[in-house]
Amino acid sequence: MFTLNVDTDLSLKLLEKEDAKELFALVDGSRDSLRRWLPWVDSMKQEKDYEPVIEMWLKQSASHDGFQAGILYKNKLAGMAGFHGIDWSNQKTSIGYWLSEKYQGYGVMTKVVKALVNYAFENYKLNRVEIQCGVDNQKSNGIPKRLGFKQEGMIRDGEFLYDHYHDCVLYGILSREWEAKGQTK
Amino acid sequence: MFTLNVDTDLSLKLLEKEDAKELFALVDGSRDSLRRWLPWVDSMKQEKDYEPVIEMWLKQSASHDGFQAGILYKNKLAGMAGFHGIDWSNQKTSIGYWLSEKYQGYGVMTKVVKALVNYAFENYKLNRVEIQCGVDNQKSNGIPKRLGFKQEGMIRDGEFLYDHYHDCVLYGILSREWEAKGQTK
Amino acid sequence: MFTLNVDTDLSLKLLEKEDAKELFALVDGSRDSLRRWLPWVDSMKQEKDYEPVIEMWLKQSASHDGFQAGILYKNKLAGMAGFHGIDWSNQKTSIGYWLSEKYQGYGVMTKVVKALVNYAFENYKLNRVEIQCGVDNQKSNGIPKRLGFKQEGMIRDGEFLYDHYHDCVLYGILSREWEAKGQTK
Amino acid sequence: MFTLNVDTDLSLKLLEKEDAKELFALVDGSRDSLRRWLPWVDSMKQEKDYEPVIEMWLKQSASHDGFQAGILYKNKLAGMAGFHGIDWSNQKTSIGYWLSEKYQGYGVMTKVVKALVNYAFENYKLNRVEIQCGVDNQKSNGIPKRLGFKQEGMIRDGEFLYDHYHDCVLYGILSREWEAKGQTK
Amino acid sequence: MFTLNVDTDLSLKLLEKEDAKELFALVDGSRDSLRRWLPWVDSMKQEKDYEPVIEMWLKQSASHDGFQAGILYKNKLAGMAGFHGIDWSNQKTSIGYWLSEKYQGYGVMTKVVKALVNYAFENYKLNRVEIQCGVDNQKSNGIPKRLGFKQEGMIRDGEFLYDHYHDCVLYGILSREWEAKGQTK
Amino acid sequence: MFTLNVDTDLSLKLLEKEDAKELFALVDGSRDSLRRWLPWVDSMKQEKDYEPVIEMWLKQSASHDGFQAGILYKNKLAGMAGFHGIDWSNQKTSIGYWLSEKYQGYGVMTKVVKALVNYAFENYKLNRVEIQCGVDNQKSNGIPKRLGFKQEGMIRDGEFLYDHYHDCVLYGILSREWEAKGQTK
Repeated sequence: MFTLNVDTDLSLKLLEKEDAKELFALVDGSRDSLRRWLPWVDSMKQEKDYEPVIEMWLKQSASHDGFQAGILYKNKLAGMAGFHGIDWSNQKTSIGYWLSEKYQGYGVMTKVVKALVNYAFENYKLNRVEIQCGVDNQKSNGIPKRLGFKQEGMIRDGEFLYDHYHDCVLYGILSREWEAKGQTK
Repeated sequence: MFTLNVDTDLSLKLLEKEDAKELFALVDGSRDSLRRWLPWVDSMKQEKDYEPVIEMWLKQSASHDGFQAGILYKNKLAGMAGFHGIDWSNQKTSIGYWLSEKYQGYGVMTKVVKALVNYAFENYKLNRVEIQCGVDNQKSNGIPKRLGFKQEGMIRDGEFLYDHYHDCVLYGILSREWEAKGQTK
Repeated sequence: MFTLNVDTDLSLKLLEKEDAKELFALVDGSRDSLRRWLPWVDSMKQEKDYEPVIEMWLKQSASHDGFQAGILYKNKLAGMAGFHGIDWSNQKTSIGYWLSEKYQGYGVMTKVVKALVNYAFENYKLNRVEIQCGVDNQKSNGIPKRLGFKQEGMIRDGEFLYDHYHDCVLYGILSREWEAKGQTK
Repeated sequence: MFTLNVDTDLSLKLLEKEDAKELFALVDGSRDSLRRWLPWVDSMKQEKDYEPVIEMWLKQSASHDGFQAGILYKNKLAGMAGFHGIDWSNQKTSIGYWLSEKYQGYGVMTKVVKALVNYAFENYKLNRVEIQCGVDNQKSNGIPKRLGFKQEGMIRDGEFLYDHYHDCVLYGILSREWEAKGQTK
Repeated sequence: MFTLNVDTDLSLKLLEKEDAKELFALVDGSRDSLRRWLPWVDSMKQEKDYEPVIEMWLKQSASHDGFQAGILYKNKLAGMAGFHGIDWSNQKTSIGYWLSEKYQGYGVMTKVVKALVNYAFENYKLNRVEIQCGVDNQKSNGIPKRLGFKQEGMIRDGEFLYDHYHDCVLYGILSREWEAKGQTK
Repeated sequence: MFTLNVDTDLSLKLLEKEDAKELFALVDGSRDSLRRWLPWVDSMKQEKDYEPVIEMWLKQSASHDGFQAGILYKNKLAGMAGFHGIDWSNQKTSIGYWLSEKYQGYGVMTKVVKALVNYAFENYKLNRVEIQCGVDNQKSNGIPKRLGFKQEGMIRDGEFLYDHYHDCVLYGILSREWEAKGQTK
């Protein structure tokens, strides 16, 4: 099991075909809360629907284009986080994340995203990391704020959720800012 | 020659292999002014370098993912404009453009971009169109302002140009705003 | 909408996914007359059947191998015409076409095929253009005759139509003949 | 060595990578006579040039689209013959062939082409076989005439040979004609 | 029909799409005896199931990676034999084979495998040929023993057959041993 | 950095493009000792030669076909180990490994291979794991012996090394034997 350690209880894991079952169960167990902010929840109706997606994620990581990883908290799958591709020409990337309801409120995601930002700046040597959050998704907006990202704009109707568009706040942080804050491990 | 008419003197054309010569000459003739804002100018050293790029643009248009087209002014190639792919899930796209120096100042690009926005909303039925401009590129910023786009944010270090990053202004317009302005043809 | 102008009322258009509906309706509305000479009519049973075909036509045009285009008469889809690939080694191509019944008899197709022959000789710089017509399809045979093609042969059992083979007349015209006739625009 | 027996001394062989050497030597040894009618002779300058071509022929035969085979006369490579693809919709194909000079005049090619026509009608169950010959290539025209093909037309400027076009005679024979002549083995 | 002659009554044939019917009938007619040693018998339930497999075999032979061929005994399909890919780096391959029950007991397979070993050493110029046989499959083990292969090992649980693993005997012969025995034709 | 922990000082890492430099330096620094048993050492002449290979390894791991990983000892690359693909039909795989000279003699590889065998039986749920060692490579043979593999055979001339073949010992262990020994973590 290839993992990226975050702290003692927390790690990221490249999901494999065998993980479809646990991933389906996790999402299926909190459909109501997840579908409020995630556009793909309704289309994932059975374990098998995750297999082509896991394959796509594995191909992404094998293509030097970032990765999507499972978040393991005390060895249980708690959510996912990762990079939406990498723009090597402009040396930037964008981070996305979600956490099942029962793992929320313990600071799990702040630690995970901090690890991903570190990975982007240290391992990939990028210059800029973006995060976009639904404007009313307070928990999600808390992460980039807590990590010192600057709010750079508001993408109106930036995302479509089942039956409506919602606005997305755009956050960004630069490599030199991250270093100045001493956030690197 | 398949074209999209803009007005009497102005049209957009899907470039073919045969156009590599004219495109090379156009860029080669104004390298200094173009490389100030376009990151790819220095790497295009000969006519042949455009062939794989033209092939890539043709594949884009054949993949229902927007298009990159040549701007014909009185039947001469004057620049290029088009869509950087289409995000069908969120019903949005982003427009890019450049014009050779000697065609600037006559309102050519405003007409072209207006035609592209119309194409996005009417032909593709999208909900949102974005434009990003280098913050100090006044001519480029003039286009979305003139067409009623809203300035939504500032993407810091958004683009890498040969030896430095520069900030990019993010503009957006929504389908309902465009209709309200009566900009559709 | 990328078009190739033929005359004021007439143009050719690269069909896109969105055109499947109009194309289905056009063929469906004159199945009886079209299936007399076209082998594919019976297999196109619903709008969706045209999507992979339109995709294939777009790939053809993006591969520098000719194109299949919709014929627009006063902005309505009236039929199709185009090139069955290009033999670059021998600098020749072959033209095919069909028109819905209600648009027949106004000289539409002669103008369209003339524009295609011009395109082959001027844009692609080819040396030879072929047309094959079912021997008993008088309207179809009228086009190459009217445009000065020479009858070069008879391909016995050249095409299979649902339950029988029929003979095809082979017509050809060379670049030098076309110029001599002054048919170029 | 997979072969199709023609008669005691004569067979067809699917060429493999290992045959590039013998094929190059055969063509190289009669460049002058072969280039009179074959357009590809000048571009084959070394043994290695045949490797991608042999690969392409093997892919053709593996794609159920006919084959190109070496002609073995007393176990020596003497030339090539085969099908230029198969038009399954219209149940027809076209045969091509060439023979090195020193094997000409013994009836080798008539036997080989007869075997190929049999293969097309019996193995592939096709309805029509075509042969095209350069109008002045008397030896080549002798084959379809001897086998009872009908001359169906003249494709003017049908083929480009290095610096000029030449006309091609089109021959065709139908399954029912072949059977009537009792040519099947 | 491309064949590799073994002796007067016996040959190997590259199977084509058209052979799916005869292949299905052959296997279907001796399911009970074949499934004792072949793991794929149960999954082949109809003629159509062989089409993708035949396509895969044809691609193998077109990729210079060995071949799987039908065994023709007096022009009837009697079984199959061939190479499980070729390890060009180490100059070795592995032979597999099966025969329908009613053709067993006449020495057919010994002749066929001898021809394949010759093909591997003479045509492919390999250094080593392997055969693996289920430890209790006496007829199968008889072939390499009769041809002078050395027993080199026992692969425990080497193959899975529907509901159990069985051990496989590993046999090998080297080019120099084959020549010393004078087995080459 | 995605890793599979072996013990405190030891882990396996999926190599990425960025690791080509360190991998080249490691192999280049002990060419003489490595080329005695590894057939690919001579062909890797510069850092860049590893990039397509690393890409191939990443594709392997993304294809659910095992992986090749770097061995990190106290965060330094010390060698590589992994699976040569997975035979899912027969539920078995084969392990390969090499270590740079200066890390040999400390039991590093025994721990690594033990972790891989565990991975094969627990994560992939396989039934059988193989290892092949050059017959005179004593250090390499020590690993499977120490871990309780059974010697199952001798593959004569099993591998080609630059200018000669050498025999390979075949070792195998089954899932039930591994459990009986209590080797699982």
